[in-house]
Amino acid sequence: MPELRKDPVLGRWVIISTERARRPDEYVLPKEEKKAPKSCPFCPGNEDKTPPEILAYRQDGTPANSPGWNLRVVANKFPALTIHGDVKREAYGIYDKMNGVGAHEVIIETPDHNEEQPDFSLEKMNDVLWAYRERIIDLKKDPRFHYVLIFKNRGYAAGASLQHAHSQVIALPIVPKRALEELAGAKAYYDYRERCVFCDIVRQEIDEQNRLITANERFISICPFASRFPFEITILPRTHSSSFEESNPEEIKSLAAILSDTLKRLDKVLVSPPYNYLLHTAPVRAGNISHYHWHCEIIPTLARVAGFEWGSGFYINPTTPEDAAKYLRENKVGE
Amino acid sequence: MPELRKDPVLGRWVIISTERARRPDEYVLPKEEKKAPKSCPFCPGNEDKTPPEILAYRQDGTPANSPGWNLRVVANKFPALTIHGDVKREAYGIYDKMNGVGAHEVIIETPDHNEEQPDFSLEKMNDVLWAYRERIIDLKKDPRFHYVLIFKNRGYAAGASLQHAHSQVIALPIVPKRALEELAGAKAYYDYRERCVFCDIVRQEIDEQNRLITANERFISICPFASRFPFEITILPRTHSSSFEESNPEEIKSLAAILSDTLKRLDKVLVSPPYNYLLHTAPVRAGNISHYHWHCEIIPTLARVAGFEWGSGFYINPTTPEDAAKYLRENKVGE
Repeated sequence: MPELRKDPVLGRWVIISTERARRPDEYVLPKEEKKAPKSCPFCPGNEDKTPPEILAYRQDGTPANSPGWNLRVVANKFPALTIHGDVKREAYGIYDKMNGVGAHEVIIETPDHNEEQPDFSLEKMNDVLWAYRERIIDLKKDPRFHYVLIFKNRGYAAGASLQHAHSQVIALPIVPKRALEELAGAKAYYDYRERCVFCDIVRQEIDEQNRLITANERFISICPFASRFPFEITILPRTHSSSFEESNPEEIKSLAAILSDTLKRLDKVLVSPPYNYLLHTAPVRAGNISHYHWHCEIIPTLARVAGFEWGSGFYINPTTPEDAAKYLRENKVGE
Repeated sequence: MPELRKDPVLGRWVIISTERARRPDEYVLPKEEKKAPKSCPFCPGNEDKTPPEILAYRQDGTPANSPGWNLRVVANKFPALTIHGDVKREAYGIYDKMNGVGAHEVIIETPDHNEEQPDFSLEKMNDVLWAYRERIIDLKKDPRFHYVLIFKNRGYAAGASLQHAHSQVIALPIVPKRALEELAGAKAYYDYRERCVFCDIVRQEIDEQNRLITANERFISICPFASRFPFEITILPRTHSSSFEESNPEEIKSLAAILSDTLKRLDKVLVSPPYNYLLHTAPVRAGNISHYHWHCEIIPTLARVAGFEWGSGFYINPTTPEDAAKYLRENKVGE
C-alpha cells in the first residue's frame, strides 16, 4: 500500500509509491562522454579565459591567474546577477521588481579536468568546503546581500554546462523562498515544542537506523523520511548550529569525510549519476538562531521531471527512503 | 542588466537574466521518435489492457470497454494511490504519515495514436476539458478527498511514459503544498487590498499587452511577469471564479479555443516541445471563494533542471516573458 508522508519542516506531503517500486539499476543513465580538455576554460594554462581569480589555493610562489593552483574561485563569465550598483526595489503596476544586483562566482575544484568529486582525496574535498566557507564569510560583509547560496551541478543532465568539476556561489539581495519556508516551518515547530526540529530528526534517525546511510562523530547522512526523489540524501551536523560558515576546521574536515563517503556510495550504487547538492544555511543577517540547523541536500538526477512537480508542489517517489538508504548503507566503497 | 521579479501570489523572486538571453530555436530538442502503435494499451482494440472504463464518450450503441469511443477514462494500471480504505493519519516518532488512499485515473484523449493535443479539433479539445470537469465533480462526492489535481505530460522529456495522448487525474486526501501557498498568498493580498490578485493580474496584462499571447471573450493567455521558465504560460478566466469545475458549457468551449490556440503557437515557435500543463483550482471543499481564481499553467520542458531549483526555490530564467510572449503572439497558426 502506498504511503503519504509529511516533511516535518516544510509541511509538504509526498507519496511513497510502492506499486511503482524501482531498483537502483533501473535508474542508471547512459554514461556521459568526456570531451577533450584542450578548450576547457577551467583547465590550467587557460586562466585568461576566465575573469581574474577572487581566491585561489596555490603552490607557494606561483603568481595569480597562472597555473600552479589546486582550487580557484572566479566570477562567473555569464553571471545571472551583476555585482555593481545599489539594490533598488520598485513597484511595476501591481507587481514588484528589483535590479539584479548580486554576486555569481564559480569554484573550480581541481586543476584535473577528468577528476570528479566522488574521487577527490579528503584533502581536496576539504579545500572545496573551506572555499565555500571563505566565500560566504567574505560575501556576508557586503550589506546588500541577504543570502548566499552554494550549490553544485554534476553532469549534463543535472545542469552542468562544463564537465570540469566546479561549484557555484550566488549572493542574493533577498532570501530565497525555500529558505524562508524552512525558517518558518522550523520556527513553528520550535515555538510549539521548544526543540529544534532538525535536532529531533538527528535523534530519531540515529535511534531508528533504517534511513541512516552512514555517520561519523559530527555528522549523519540519511535518506529523509519524506524524500521527494529516489536516493535523495540529507547530511546534518549532530550538534545544533544554524550557519555552515561558523564551522571550525575540525568540523569541515569531518564534513569532507562524510560527504566524500556518501558520494562514493552514490557513485557505486547508481553508476556515477548526475546530481545536484546544495547547502541550506541561515540567511547571512540571521545571527545564530535556536530553531534553524544548517544541512546539505544531495539530489541525484534520476527521474525525468516535470513541470507537474514544479506546478503542484506534489511528488510521487517510487523508491522508499528505507530501501535507498539500505542500498547506500551496504555499498561502502573500500570495504 | 538582469532583473529580479516577484510573483504576486507566491512571493517567490526569480531572476530574469538578460545576460544569458536565448532565442526560441536554441531550445529546440531533437524530435521524439513515434513508436508503432500495435502494443499501445490506449489504442482501440486494446481496451482489455487497461482497467475498465469509468467514463467514456462513445459512438451510439457501442458497448463499454470495446472500440467506438472518442475519449475514455480508466483507472491508472500502476496507481500512485489506492482507491480502497479509510484515511488514517498517524504519528511516526516526530513524523506524520497517512495511508495512501486516493484516486489515480488516466484520460485517454483520442483513439488516434498519432494525434497530439495541439492538433486536436476544437470539439475534441472541448471533450477533454469536459471530461476533466466531469471527473472532478464525481470525485468531489467522495468525502475522503480534499483536492483533485488534473495534469498532462506531453513527450518523454516531460514525464510521459506512453506516447498516446492522455491526461491524468489524482484525487488526494490532502491539499498539496502549492495549492495551499497560492490560497494563502491570494488571501493575504485580498485581506490587504480587498481585491482578487488574479483579477488584478488580468486587468494589468490586458492594459499592458506586452506579456499577452492571445485573448478571447472569456480568457486571456499570458507569459507571467515572474516566469520561472522560458515560455511558461498562464491561462486565466477574465471573470472571477474559484473553481474550474463550475465552468458552464460556453466557458469550457471558450477555454478549449484559447488552450488550442496557445498550444498551436507553442508547437510552432518551439517545434513541438515536450510540455506539462496543470489546472490550479480551489480545494474541493473550499466552496466559492472571493480571493482565489482558477487558472491553467503550461510549462514547456526546455531547460535541463535541476535539483538546484527544487532545493532552493530559486529560478534563473534566460528568456524574458515579454520576449516569449512576443514570439508566441506573432506566430498564430492559421494566419
